Amino acid sequence: MLQYWIQYPKLHKQLKAVTQILSDHMVVSNPDVQEALLSLTKSGGKMLRPAMFLLFTQFGDKTKQDQDRLNNIAASLEILHMATLIHDDVIDDSPLRRGQVTIQSQYGKDVAVYTGDFLFTQFFDLIIDNVDDREYLNINAQTMERILLGELNQMYKRFDQAETVEEYLENITGKTAELFWLAAMEGAHFGGTRDDVTKLAGSIGKNIGMAFQVLDDILDYVSDTETLKKPVLEDLTQGIYTLPLLLAKAQAPEAFAPILGKRQHITDDDAKTIAQLVDQYDGVTKAKAYANSYTDAALDAIAQLPDIKAKKVLQGVTKELLERSY
Amino acid sequence: MLQYWIQYPKLHKQLKAVTQILSDHMVVSNPDVQEALLSLTKSGGKMLRPAMFLLFTQFGDKTKQDQDRLNNIAASLEILHMATLIHDDVIDDSPLRRGQVTIQSQYGKDVAVYTGDFLFTQFFDLIIDNVDDREYLNINAQTMERILLGELNQMYKRFDQAETVEEYLENITGKTAELFWLAAMEGAHFGGTRDDVTKLAGSIGKNIGMAFQVLDDILDYVSDTETLKKPVLEDLTQGIYTLPLLLAKAQAPEAFAPILGKRQHITDDDAKTIAQLVDQYDGVTKAKAYANSYTDAALDAIAQLPDIKAKKVLQGVTKELLERSY
Repeated sequence: MLQYWIQYPKLHKQLKAVTQILSDHMVVSNPDVQEALLSLTKSGGKMLRPAMFLLFTQFGDKTKQDQDRLNNIAASLEILHMATLIHDDVIDDSPLRRGQVTIQSQYGKDVAVYTGDFLFTQFFDLIIDNVDDREYLNINAQTMERILLGELNQMYKRFDQAETVEEYLENITGKTAELFWLAAMEGAHFGGTRDDVTKLAGSIGKNIGMAFQVLDDILDYVSDTETLKKPVLEDLTQGIYTLPLLLAKAQAPEAFAPILGKRQHITDDDAKTIAQLVDQYDGVTKAKAYANSYTDAALDAIAQLPDIKAKKVLQGVTKELLERSY
Repeated sequence: MLQYWIQYPKLHKQLKAVTQILSDHMVVSNPDVQEALLSLTKSGGKMLRPAMFLLFTQFGDKTKQDQDRLNNIAASLEILHMATLIHDDVIDDSPLRRGQVTIQSQYGKDVAVYTGDFLFTQFFDLIIDNVDDREYLNINAQTMERILLGELNQMYKRFDQAETVEEYLENITGKTAELFWLAAMEGAHFGGTRDDVTKLAGSIGKNIGMAFQVLDDILDYVSDTETLKKPVLEDLTQGIYTLPLLLAKAQAPEAFAPILGKRQHITDDDAKTIAQLVDQYDGVTKAKAYANSYTDAALDAIAQLPDIKAKKVLQGVTKELLERSY
């Protein structure tokens, strides 16, 4: 999926180096886990978090940068992301992820649990080897913790019809936006930018992360497996109520209650009815307004960055990523 | 289970402080995970790893020690131990651990996976906050990795009748002895002992860990649920072939092959037959000889420690722990 970055040759080249670091850290003697790790890297995503990190490093002083160290920290972000994804798939019993069969459905939960754990150790390794001040080691540990707490809260709120929009936003802050925040903020910091740029970077990352997750949740209600490689309404059947549903449901809770009350016994037809209700009560339109406000906040903050080439790239990437057509 | 240490008042008091640190690090807003964490601390084991750590700190210079920091590092060892135990139980689908219902069987694998992950973050936190040199941060990361690789190899060797004694010993080195090595070695180091004592401590810890695991595996073949609170032959039915079986099987592989060939479809009667065969071919006696040689190596190394009170305690604890009656 690195071809996504082909129009940005410098970034593309750096991400290739990051991919190599990922491969180097995915060597284990257990053949099942090794195969699982290889399939992960092959089906790899866009490497958004390393890309975000690397773009923000460019706001620093290039002459003082150690590119190897920067690439290693960029890799740590993707490894932490992969570790949490694998464990989420175990929790969700997800058959597919990014259109690919998940580790747990292909190799069993045993391999999936240990593969995720193994990736946590690699994250830990990379951070300890490449982050030299305690403050940033702590920030990494705390981010890992907040990602997990976001997941925990999401799990706890499953099938809870009383879940509020605020609770949803808090959960996606933890499970998605925190890591984008870390990527952008660390990129600026380790790139050697001024403190105010580092702070701005963090805010940009967080807003991009929020918009990204809201849009991802919207896609569950507007696309199908053909176009998106993701089982439609997958979250719904797992009791995860995302923004389009929450916003539509707020308009007419009584219309949703009987179907959602079936919890895990919801049928395909029920799911279709829910999708129609979400459409009828403008759930997607309202959710888009949230996504847009996060995107706007990100773009406003990007506008305040120093005028270098990376700023234009960042604007282009943000628009492309967050202004999907549907 | 802290009463195990009641005859050593100083250690007992320190371990109480460590227990408090554990409780402080086990606070999450998710009520299921919180309940799971509380049940873990309540059913807690003997805290062998923190105890080992604290005993070795006493070989250092007390006037230079920061007891809070030492207690925190001691707690990190128990947290890492608990995290790996919980994920092992998910893998094994174990109904019981230490005679208690496991997290995964009581709360489901979702809670178990995240509870283990949460404990990894707490381990990470404690280490970063209390270990100030990079060398020891690295040692911690590497130990976490080696424990996991030991587990992975054990998983990979399941139902493998060609598994060798050497492979078994390598796996238990990773899954058990490495953490005892870390506990003893770090206790000596952070207690402020000389480098040669730190090295000796590591060797003592490792040998105690090896003896401890071999004895634990022997118990699977000699006790029953009444006396040991552990399902007898649990490992066997999961395809984990431990030392008594491996040593007996080496005498007459053809006697074992047909039954073990049934893999997970082994019956209770089959398991009993295996137990009889292990007895007939002196598996337990031979395994005991291994345990004894590790215990002797530990005691020999302890004898070389400086003559302070903690040395006598260490001798007593080692003998009590490793010279079980059966």
